Amino acid sequence: MIAQLVEQIREKNAPVVVGLDPQLGFLPGHLLDDALRHNAETPYGGDEMAGAAEAFFRFNKEIVDAVADLVPAVKPQVAMYEQLGIPGMIAYWRTVRYCQEKGLIVIGDVKRGDIGSTSEAYARAHLGSVSIRGVREQAFGEDFATVNPYLGTDGIKPFIDVCNQEDKGIFVLVKTSNPSSGEFQDILTEDGRHMYEIVGEKVREWGEASMDGEYSNVGAVVGATYPEQAKTLRALMPHTFILAPGYGAQGATADDLAGFFHEDGTGAIVNSSRGIIAAYRKDKYAKFGEEGFAEAARAATIDMIEDLRRALGTK
Amino acid sequence: MIAQLVEQIREKNAPVVVGLDPQLGFLPGHLLDDALRHNAETPYGGDEMAGAAEAFFRFNKEIVDAVADLVPAVKPQVAMYEQLGIPGMIAYWRTVRYCQEKGLIVIGDVKRGDIGSTSEAYARAHLGSVSIRGVREQAFGEDFATVNPYLGTDGIKPFIDVCNQEDKGIFVLVKTSNPSSGEFQDILTEDGRHMYEIVGEKVREWGEASMDGEYSNVGAVVGATYPEQAKTLRALMPHTFILAPGYGAQGATADDLAGFFHEDGTGAIVNSSRGIIAAYRKDKYAKFGEEGFAEAARAATIDMIEDLRRALGTK
Repeated sequence: MIAQLVEQIREKNAPVVVGLDPQLGFLPGHLLDDALRHNAETPYGGDEMAGAAEAFFRFNKEIVDAVADLVPAVKPQVAMYEQLGIPGMIAYWRTVRYCQEKGLIVIGDVKRGDIGSTSEAYARAHLGSVSIRGVREQAFGEDFATVNPYLGTDGIKPFIDVCNQEDKGIFVLVKTSNPSSGEFQDILTEDGRHMYEIVGEKVREWGEASMDGEYSNVGAVVGATYPEQAKTLRALMPHTFILAPGYGAQGATADDLAGFFHEDGTGAIVNSSRGIIAAYRKDKYAKFGEEGFAEAARAATIDMIEDLRRALGTK
Repeated sequence: MIAQLVEQIREKNAPVVVGLDPQLGFLPGHLLDDALRHNAETPYGGDEMAGAAEAFFRFNKEIVDAVADLVPAVKPQVAMYEQLGIPGMIAYWRTVRYCQEKGLIVIGDVKRGDIGSTSEAYARAHLGSVSIRGVREQAFGEDFATVNPYLGTDGIKPFIDVCNQEDKGIFVLVKTSNPSSGEFQDILTEDGRHMYEIVGEKVREWGEASMDGEYSNVGAVVGATYPEQAKTLRALMPHTFILAPGYGAQGATADDLAGFFHEDGTGAIVNSSRGIIAAYRKDKYAKFGEEGFAEAARAATIDMIEDLRRALGTK
């Protein structure tokens, strides 16, 4: 699967993933109004939640239609959907399928991770399938999933097995983009290495049996907000593809990101969520208005791609 | 919420939580047959998945009916439901509600954790509620949730805020029960402490502003399979309530668990999942047969409670 992602990035000359993380706070009012009027009732959660979930899906659909020719991948953040209960999970399910129909690779930002048999269930839920009386069916069916490493190898191995069986991929959290990520991840161990380096080495090791072209299907999440640590990790994990969140709204610039890539311009993909999907609320894209939120997202995506091409010298 | 859990444990003299982690591999055949015959079709996932999810709910319901008078709490493992997609999440939602109707406290074993605004969404999904145009609705509505600490304070803080607002609780992963949990959690840091001790100290600190009786609503997960580490952590976090998985199927005994408790017999609750819900497959409870799986679960629960009372001297 990582070979497909690398190929798509190359074809579009755009190492950019659009984060589909809708929030009630920036959903255009007309979309929510309309969805609340027409929402189907559900026995599993309130009517308002069902309306909001429908609005999330419509919001995503318009954005996906506006950016699908520009980028190789999208990254829906499942937490945003999960807060809307069952209707929200249905909106997530529909979003994954809609994006795949449009030819986009879907990175499910689910940050799952548990002990052995439970991680197996998560791996089946997001990347694999279940077999019931010999009938094989798929639950959420993303192409990649993000995974939390805190439980160690036997929490990660079940995901890798599914990746190897079904040509899927994972991105393991190594150094996250948030301000307090250093509390545990930057701790110095007795041999003078940081925790994130130890996790990074494990990610490299886990990925060795999952090579798919130049890179492994076992990738890493390294926050765009930590360029120094990224340089160390890039050198430590040469065949590990990096998913870098934190560009834009979290403060990282394209120049911060150069060290995430190899000299040939491959090796990483940069995520922006709010900076793209809520672009219409920024002064720079205000001319599109609330009704033009999808065109604003397209304009912001083009600007981000140009910005990265400039910094990487791939213009 | 932790005060309610402590009170329920005291009333039933049973520091035991039953893990509702159904698996296709040990679902009684008659339950699955029947559910597959009567499953409602769903546009969001295959028919077989809908049947299996219905069977999961019926399985849980019979077990809950059989053990509700014995134990204070249940712990459904969301991964098992998530692998069945939308129908599975509906079965999870129904399980949470059914258990609460029966007066049980529900610990959602969700192991969520992300950066700030995304953790806020997870906290709303599992412990809080969303407000849509002034209407407040609840997504999954568990009483407690398990949380992964790898992203640090700004990943945990949103959960604590919801706990304080709505009298809910969390259990933060400190030292997990699986064989490879030591890979990162046992790493020695430059000041001579283990990673799990550093996380344990943070859990104590995070919990200080969330006291609810003798204990904090911010608890810790410490695997029953690591009694030595538990002794250290018990001393380090005196007001932190411990959720201890790993009894039975994972190999921990009641005697291993004594050090998880304070001398007054409070301070921890022990989980057993497969050892109880799949008891009918063990020689000891084989006499109940597959049809008697719920009575077998009841017998195994009584045995586990007796075993812990003996080890804790609370018989």
